[in-house]
Amino acid sequence: MNKNSSNIMALSPTTSNKRETVCIFGTGDFGRALGHKMIQSGYPVVYGSRSTQASSLIPKDAEVLSHAEAAQKASIIIIAIQRQHYNFLTSLAEILHGKVLVDISNNVKLNQYPESNAEYLAQLVPGAKVVKAFNTVSAWALQSGTLDASRQVFVCGDDMEAKQMVMDIVRALGLTPLDHGSLLAAQEIENYPLQLFPMWKFPILLSFGLVAFFFFYCLIRDVIYPYVYENKDFSFFIAISIPNRICPILALTLLALVYLPGVLAAIIQLYRGTKYRRFPDWLDKWMLCRKQLGLVALAFASLHVLYTLIIPIRSFVRWRISSQIVSQALSNKTEPLNNTDAWLSDSYLALGILGFFLFVLLGITSLPSVSNNVNWREFRFVQSKLGYLTLILCTAHTMVYGGKWFLSPSSYRWYLPSAYMLSLIVPCIVLVVKFVLIFPCLDKPLTQIRQGWERNPQYSE
Amino acid sequence: MNKNSSNIMALSPTTSNKRETVCIFGTGDFGRALGHKMIQSGYPVVYGSRSTQASSLIPKDAEVLSHAEAAQKASIIIIAIQRQHYNFLTSLAEILHGKVLVDISNNVKLNQYPESNAEYLAQLVPGAKVVKAFNTVSAWALQSGTLDASRQVFVCGDDMEAKQMVMDIVRALGLTPLDHGSLLAAQEIENYPLQLFPMWKFPILLSFGLVAFFFFYCLIRDVIYPYVYENKDFSFFIAISIPNRICPILALTLLALVYLPGVLAAIIQLYRGTKYRRFPDWLDKWMLCRKQLGLVALAFASLHVLYTLIIPIRSFVRWRISSQIVSQALSNKTEPLNNTDAWLSDSYLALGILGFFLFVLLGITSLPSVSNNVNWREFRFVQSKLGYLTLILCTAHTMVYGGKWFLSPSSYRWYLPSAYMLSLIVPCIVLVVKFVLIFPCLDKPLTQIRQGWERNPQYSE
Amino acid sequence: MNKNSSNIMALSPTTSNKRETVCIFGTGDFGRALGHKMIQSGYPVVYGSRSTQASSLIPKDAEVLSHAEAAQKASIIIIAIQRQHYNFLTSLAEILHGKVLVDISNNVKLNQYPESNAEYLAQLVPGAKVVKAFNTVSAWALQSGTLDASRQVFVCGDDMEAKQMVMDIVRALGLTPLDHGSLLAAQEIENYPLQLFPMWKFPILLSFGLVAFFFFYCLIRDVIYPYVYENKDFSFFIAISIPNRICPILALTLLALVYLPGVLAAIIQLYRGTKYRRFPDWLDKWMLCRKQLGLVALAFASLHVLYTLIIPIRSFVRWRISSQIVSQALSNKTEPLNNTDAWLSDSYLALGILGFFLFVLLGITSLPSVSNNVNWREFRFVQSKLGYLTLILCTAHTMVYGGKWFLSPSSYRWYLPSAYMLSLIVPCIVLVVKFVLIFPCLDKPLTQIRQGWERNPQYSE
Repeated sequence: MNKNSSNIMALSPTTSNKRETVCIFGTGDFGRALGHKMIQSGYPVVYGSRSTQASSLIPKDAEVLSHAEAAQKASIIIIAIQRQHYNFLTSLAEILHGKVLVDISNNVKLNQYPESNAEYLAQLVPGAKVVKAFNTVSAWALQSGTLDASRQVFVCGDDMEAKQMVMDIVRALGLTPLDHGSLLAAQEIENYPLQLFPMWKFPILLSFGLVAFFFFYCLIRDVIYPYVYENKDFSFFIAISIPNRICPILALTLLALVYLPGVLAAIIQLYRGTKYRRFPDWLDKWMLCRKQLGLVALAFASLHVLYTLIIPIRSFVRWRISSQIVSQALSNKTEPLNNTDAWLSDSYLALGILGFFLFVLLGITSLPSVSNNVNWREFRFVQSKLGYLTLILCTAHTMVYGGKWFLSPSSYRWYLPSAYMLSLIVPCIVLVVKFVLIFPCLDKPLTQIRQGWERNPQYSE
Repeated sequence: MNKNSSNIMALSPTTSNKRETVCIFGTGDFGRALGHKMIQSGYPVVYGSRSTQASSLIPKDAEVLSHAEAAQKASIIIIAIQRQHYNFLTSLAEILHGKVLVDISNNVKLNQYPESNAEYLAQLVPGAKVVKAFNTVSAWALQSGTLDASRQVFVCGDDMEAKQMVMDIVRALGLTPLDHGSLLAAQEIENYPLQLFPMWKFPILLSFGLVAFFFFYCLIRDVIYPYVYENKDFSFFIAISIPNRICPILALTLLALVYLPGVLAAIIQLYRGTKYRRFPDWLDKWMLCRKQLGLVALAFASLHVLYTLIIPIRSFVRWRISSQIVSQALSNKTEPLNNTDAWLSDSYLALGILGFFLFVLLGITSLPSVSNNVNWREFRFVQSKLGYLTLILCTAHTMVYGGKWFLSPSSYRWYLPSAYMLSLIVPCIVLVVKFVLIFPCLDKPLTQIRQGWERNPQYSE
Repeated sequence: MNKNSSNIMALSPTTSNKRETVCIFGTGDFGRALGHKMIQSGYPVVYGSRSTQASSLIPKDAEVLSHAEAAQKASIIIIAIQRQHYNFLTSLAEILHGKVLVDISNNVKLNQYPESNAEYLAQLVPGAKVVKAFNTVSAWALQSGTLDASRQVFVCGDDMEAKQMVMDIVRALGLTPLDHGSLLAAQEIENYPLQLFPMWKFPILLSFGLVAFFFFYCLIRDVIYPYVYENKDFSFFIAISIPNRICPILALTLLALVYLPGVLAAIIQLYRGTKYRRFPDWLDKWMLCRKQLGLVALAFASLHVLYTLIIPIRSFVRWRISSQIVSQALSNKTEPLNNTDAWLSDSYLALGILGFFLFVLLGITSLPSVSNNVNWREFRFVQSKLGYLTLILCTAHTMVYGGKWFLSPSSYRWYLPSAYMLSLIVPCIVLVVKFVLIFPCLDKPLTQIRQGWERNPQYSE
């Protein structure tokens, strides 16, 4: 290792002007982009290609040779060809022996092949040191130099010295290498660029469904009903009034759905008397996207706050208030302050503000850089204690908002209750069950089960 | 090292299907959880236990052997037993020679023992390579797979090769290893999971105290006084009006307390004529929690903004405005626009908006991922220049808010001044002293002192 | 390497009480601060100095010897002297052979010398292992212990073992080492502490210019014009009304300027028929500060939101509304609800809320810790798709805001159109051009070009 290392070091002297030659197999778009960038960073580049005719597309400072000749010129070879064409490398096995092969390939589908491209390459050329790298950057980004997004290059490989050499090249190109360990990580690294927010799919689809349902529900109650019975055109409610009903409903429901799986899991564990049996699949998946559910809920809560705060600027609201005042003035009477109304109005606003404030706090602690700086004890304190406090405050906010009319029969239209009442169902269930689970007669066995105790040991797998 | 490494590599071939056997000493909850997870990730697991009877709790794919037999089967041994029982390992010293021992233990109290558990283990089995890891993840989190919180596993150890092997296992389990250097870091790593926001204790206790004080102060002035003298029931002020007095007061006072220790430190250094003597302990501690103080202040400022923005929706405010307008209409007079009032109202709102905006900016730059991306010069620019600008704007906001009534005797009730006037004390002191310190006659020697100059060199320790 | 390593390890036994001696050349401020800190962390420190008289400034637990004597006592030597004085080290070349030299120097200007100080040092003492470190922390911060800012210490060097030793010291001092690879990175590390938000300069200067222009534009239209023609004093508009005109204008214009360079680049590429020629320099620079432009735009948008939300609390607004209502009451007429007005008012508010919401989402994804957790596909989805949606919503918000008076001649004062109309110019250009570029007849060749196709291959460099 030491000898090897000193040899390599000898090739890269301390002056920044001379760098070790890099060989690139393949003259496709990504191979050319990488070559351009490397030449810019001072690396001599040699292309290995089937046709050694100098193509005008290839950076003019780069040499183009046959694969065998090119490979002999460098100790690092970047394999910028597609996996289907890897086969021909077996014929070069002797020349590639001891060289560092950098696999930069990506697939078109997740888990397209049983083993990762890099591991397949390592099997084809057993004597070479295979390193997976560069597959997470795009050719376009490399070329344009506008690396707004992640500059991270995931690197993995079994040979530490080879990995180090590749990571130094990554750094020289102005990117940030991230060591992902041995070549076992290659599959994951190859899947990474193909993902499009996989954890967000369920929460977003769920909220689309709920938004659609509550939109039509509110449309019927708040626009169609008054049009049919009172012949009033409140169609402009679609812009603000109805969204401002849907948003809090979704925020509260989704927030409750964050805590529902935990409560279900506790019931299942209590019933089974063990924690060593797997939860049903749907529960597992649900638990894994709780963070995303919570953030979508926070997004709806934020929209609700914005929609609420602009209420006094709305032309409709100004008209309504001014016509009320004018009619009061004309009828020559001044209403005294209704203390109960003042209390109800101020309480539900205060509860909403505190709930939203804690909700934002929860959101901030789920930022990766913040949650990486807290330990488990702190994380559990914030997400569980503060989380439930948020749920309680938001549920109370919704209940007090109903105020005197809560559950009164006059608020039914076409037998449909007010929309906000529907939003209370899930949170109330969660809070009641959680409250029951806190009782010592249930909390004590649950704690024991979570520490590994089993009621019927034969149950364990 | 090289030989060692190649031997180890030989055991972990490049195909992802075969992984090296891991031995776990101890069949407690965490040992079982870790074993389950490792088997899921493809590692053959051998348990070393006093009683080799296969317990139903142990994952069924794992073998259970005596400690000596189990240790011989693997080159990595995870010590999942408590520190009190480490003693028996000395009898296995010969078998453990050259093996990697992973210490995963945690203590119940901070700094429970003079040396860390991992260092104690290294002393007991001098021939083994001890690595500290896994103590920051919980058994529950490992088992449920819902690693919402930090996936970071702190790793430290004196042998780089051994550390690398452990870090590869960490990565294979889907966690993120973080190299903390040599075994010297073990104490810190063992203390980490026991902390519960240690830096936040002082700021939060302080603000609880201040909130309590100002709550009763405002209760007396704004609720009890009008009840006694005017027989008016303003008890609903408790929900919004009083919190909206307390929040800005705390925000401003805490923000000033962020900058007070820096000013005090400058005075102490000027007085002593040297920077080489330690500050008093309380000042050191105060300086270390300035960031937390500032964030608590920002929280109160945000609440103040929310409480203020919902003012026009409050039922009480609507009633007050409409009764004013009705009485105007009935008395048949229209007031002309008072230009001074318009100026004062708009100025204090504008100052508040700009102050809050800068305050949020300060908060964003204190996010770990942001502050890690700025250098010292930039950080000092933001925290010092922008910080003082924020303090000036917020103080001015409070002063202009008082407007024409500022310091007028009619605003005293039971000899108590308005609460907002109390909040101006600390910020004004800080700003005045800071202003004095900027004068060249004080700034020049201070700069010299901070660059290492001393007035009376004999003072140095 | 192995032998070397075991020797070094032998010097630092596993007990945390004994640590290897560190030698510091130079007794200047930073040398002393580092020495203090190291002694606190348990390292024996030896100073190498020209005058070996014990100065009172030097920590009293440290020995002061001649350079040669001091160097012999330790295997790590920290060079705390200025680059100009490095020359004398050549005379010590023999003693320094094989030692680890830590270069901690900083320059006064960016790229002051052709090669970095650390590379210069490595040339002067070829037998030593040079490591660059510690230049990013300040002496003041080290001494005061209040490391609020980045605790990151960038480390680079050609010898891995030497780098590891330095990184362990960094960790022992409570700082976070960050491996930047080989000594080639030293130049970048030395430039780092000298920067002051280099990427923000252009966006901030640009917005200052635009703010100044629009301030005077609005001053003329909204304050001077009514004063001249109607003799009304609206000078207090300077505090809120005019800022609340400027902020949305700048937010929209800057947001459009984020997307303009991408559109220009596409036109240039289509025209040239290749992606292999460099863009003009101004376009390159513009593209590199798009993120900063977007964040400045978001700052103006946030201010606009705050300024808008406090409208109903403004004394002027309350006076205007109440005098309108009073005059209505006195003239004994109630206006019916104007449905068009209600629609327009609600629509522009709803568009603004959704636009701002997406804008904040864009801002959050540009936080380093968030953007590091998304891949290119996700990043492009957010920044491109969501970004254009934000631009469309904000442009529509501004257009609907104009409502019925949009482009009506009565809104001209002194031939000046309303300021908000000027803000629509750039966004409309961007959206129209982008819309044209989406047509398949232009989108197809553009995609081909971006994948490496060339219309006239001879054009390539």
